[in-house]
Amino acid sequence: MGISRILIANRGEIALRIHRAAHEMGIETVAVHSTADADAMHVRLADHAICIGPPSATDSYLNQAAIISAAEISGADAIHPGYGFLSENAQFAEIVETHDIKWIGPKPEHIRTMGDKVEAKRTAGALGLPLVPGSDGAISSIEEAAEVAEQIGYPVLVKAASGGGGRGMKVIPTAADLASAVAQAKSEAKAAFGDDTVYLEKYLGNPRHIEFQVFGDGNGNAVHLGERDCSLQRRHQKVLEEAPSPVLSQEERQRMGSIVAKAMAEMGYRGAGTIEFLWENGEFYFIEMNTRLQVEHPVTEAITGVDLVREQIRIADGKPLSVQQDEIEFKGHAIECRINAEDPFNFIPSPGLVTTYHAAGGMHVRVDSGLYAGYRIPPYYDSMIAKLIVYGRTREGCIMRLRRALEEMVIEGVKTSIPLHEALLNEPDILDGNYSIKWLEEWLGEREA
Amino acid sequence: MGISRILIANRGEIALRIHRAAHEMGIETVAVHSTADADAMHVRLADHAICIGPPSATDSYLNQAAIISAAEISGADAIHPGYGFLSENAQFAEIVETHDIKWIGPKPEHIRTMGDKVEAKRTAGALGLPLVPGSDGAISSIEEAAEVAEQIGYPVLVKAASGGGGRGMKVIPTAADLASAVAQAKSEAKAAFGDDTVYLEKYLGNPRHIEFQVFGDGNGNAVHLGERDCSLQRRHQKVLEEAPSPVLSQEERQRMGSIVAKAMAEMGYRGAGTIEFLWENGEFYFIEMNTRLQVEHPVTEAITGVDLVREQIRIADGKPLSVQQDEIEFKGHAIECRINAEDPFNFIPSPGLVTTYHAAGGMHVRVDSGLYAGYRIPPYYDSMIAKLIVYGRTREGCIMRLRRALEEMVIEGVKTSIPLHEALLNEPDILDGNYSIKWLEEWLGEREA
Repeated sequence: MGISRILIANRGEIALRIHRAAHEMGIETVAVHSTADADAMHVRLADHAICIGPPSATDSYLNQAAIISAAEISGADAIHPGYGFLSENAQFAEIVETHDIKWIGPKPEHIRTMGDKVEAKRTAGALGLPLVPGSDGAISSIEEAAEVAEQIGYPVLVKAASGGGGRGMKVIPTAADLASAVAQAKSEAKAAFGDDTVYLEKYLGNPRHIEFQVFGDGNGNAVHLGERDCSLQRRHQKVLEEAPSPVLSQEERQRMGSIVAKAMAEMGYRGAGTIEFLWENGEFYFIEMNTRLQVEHPVTEAITGVDLVREQIRIADGKPLSVQQDEIEFKGHAIECRINAEDPFNFIPSPGLVTTYHAAGGMHVRVDSGLYAGYRIPPYYDSMIAKLIVYGRTREGCIMRLRRALEEMVIEGVKTSIPLHEALLNEPDILDGNYSIKWLEEWLGEREA
Repeated sequence: MGISRILIANRGEIALRIHRAAHEMGIETVAVHSTADADAMHVRLADHAICIGPPSATDSYLNQAAIISAAEISGADAIHPGYGFLSENAQFAEIVETHDIKWIGPKPEHIRTMGDKVEAKRTAGALGLPLVPGSDGAISSIEEAAEVAEQIGYPVLVKAASGGGGRGMKVIPTAADLASAVAQAKSEAKAAFGDDTVYLEKYLGNPRHIEFQVFGDGNGNAVHLGERDCSLQRRHQKVLEEAPSPVLSQEERQRMGSIVAKAMAEMGYRGAGTIEFLWENGEFYFIEMNTRLQVEHPVTEAITGVDLVREQIRIADGKPLSVQQDEIEFKGHAIECRINAEDPFNFIPSPGLVTTYHAAGGMHVRVDSGLYAGYRIPPYYDSMIAKLIVYGRTREGCIMRLRRALEEMVIEGVKTSIPLHEALLNEPDILDGNYSIKWLEEWLGEREA
């Protein structure tokens, strides 16, 4: 009596992604959609489709009562929330489970813990994940500050405990700068917040964003599926992701992978999760954990061969993971380009009618997209309309293939970010894998200037 | 001074396939096309395009002088012939080479040898490939016939040396049937051809078509990339191919793979080749060798990760193979469906305007096709318009994924063989991998009845 009908509580490419995994497992799908999405690809392909509200996400994709009703009406025995919308809503997960519907996601308590920044950090620390090192509270004297700074290693950051917006915050490059910087930060903090309490933290000048994909069965077994490098970001939005990271050695991957897998096992984590780190000079620093599938999950699928949505469904169905850690091999290189309906350089959204659509094809080219010719991209939601994922035996081969795949993609009627990706793939820093989370915004700034 | 510009002496999906591999290696492409193919996808994507003649293949794709001229005019330093057309024309290969243009294919002498059925069998035998066992000439007495039949193993076939069309041919199930069958065959042969010479051959009742992909560097190094099972055929045309074969064990694959690789090394074979066998009850019987890329090469690419067209270009360029035998791993399962523009069940061609085209997408789904909405399929050439290649970790998973990919493919305006593939994937014999080269025609016959 396993899962036989999944309600997909999402839209766009991820709804199609979930539909595909379900059908490949012989499971029926129920699409729920707003009035704006009635013509969506996944709605056409799903076995059942139910309109759950008007375009506004609050009244449709975030409308818990409507979604639960749709599940009851359609006889769905499981709900997959995708990413965004209700995917990290612990309360919704609980409601789903109290209706005897399987929640294709982590245990609600883990969603809740990891959704709270302070709680998440505390938990991560307790589970042995590396945090950004710091003074663990207020600095009481210059001597103490010097001792802490020495321990962390320069450069360090002095920050006002009551601070925000960069006030009362200073970078301290060397020991010689410590006393004056702390004094200055304290007086700024006093002036700005009426409180001169400051603390020290390691300063990360040019970190990368490296995240590990984890999977737990909820019963104390967990694996990692390696990392993704998502350092190319604009306003905290990822633009292009790759796996493996160009800067990690196999030894570092295995070391950190073991740490995160062990942490998940200890936690009794269930389903897919992503543990995000900043990385600099060979060291990892925990940022947060996402208790859901990520947009960029296909790059992991490409280098491991493991279908992550299939694993999610298996686990929600009480089955074990289909792979053991020692069966997970990392082979080749994969890059994902997020293709948005927007101006490629000023990022102004460009919804509207897609007059022509032609996906790239051929060896090791994957397109995840609900686009088709004649489809009207609604203006109400996220602007991502396609993901182009390309695999190669080497990073260089992957980039060459990605370039030719971008050449082949045809999306007419709206502006897209394809030209941005083409421009990025001509940048020596990108070709060399030499970029931090600051790279893209600096590059965009220089282009503008 | 490697290859920098490849002339693609072909059309359709294989021309696009070659264009893609070239661009992924940073090599320019020259498309040559008939007037009927001016709007073909690969013509649009190629760096240069030259019209070489009217629709008739004889005057265009088989027009050697026009193709050589196009290479000279465009400055192409290599020619890739694809499959069909001039790909197995030894004389053309020689002409190309005398013009100081690299021939992306085997040495002309090997094309010639393998193109001659008798020569090919003799060579294969000399290289240690298993042939269909038989009496090696005429049978002079029943005693000799009995001895040979015992050696080959029953059932055996008695055939008239001057025979044809099944006359003077008898299946001999057991030793008890030998004397009467030979006598009968002799008298039939005498009556039909005035010659009662007969010989014996092993009878293959329900063989499979299993072929090995080989690659040589022309200098005595060669590898095999495992086998493909292409038993599903109609009138000797392959319909659906898979790798690995559902009936071979890893041990059998390695054993026969080693034999074919050794044969190719000994021959000094250069480039891609396919050695075709009939297979029955664990035994292989050489049929022929194709000295070119096969239509079904992508299933091998899917399970090995090796880009065969890239290897072809490397070798033509004097580079070594990019993989050694011990680096070639066989992982998972792949199936290719040939999608033709024809009635799915009576096979009447259906060329014309494609009004809507939507390729399947998602994980492990590959589409090789030059189709696009608005493209007019010309009536002059082969009816194959797309190849859908799907990979899965297991054969069962591959079939499930293939089904959902077929569900997603949209080709409107012409009839296609998609419904045939959908029907095949519901047949228990296909699901069980239990089919011989006779299966499809029998099944089609039963459908009709």
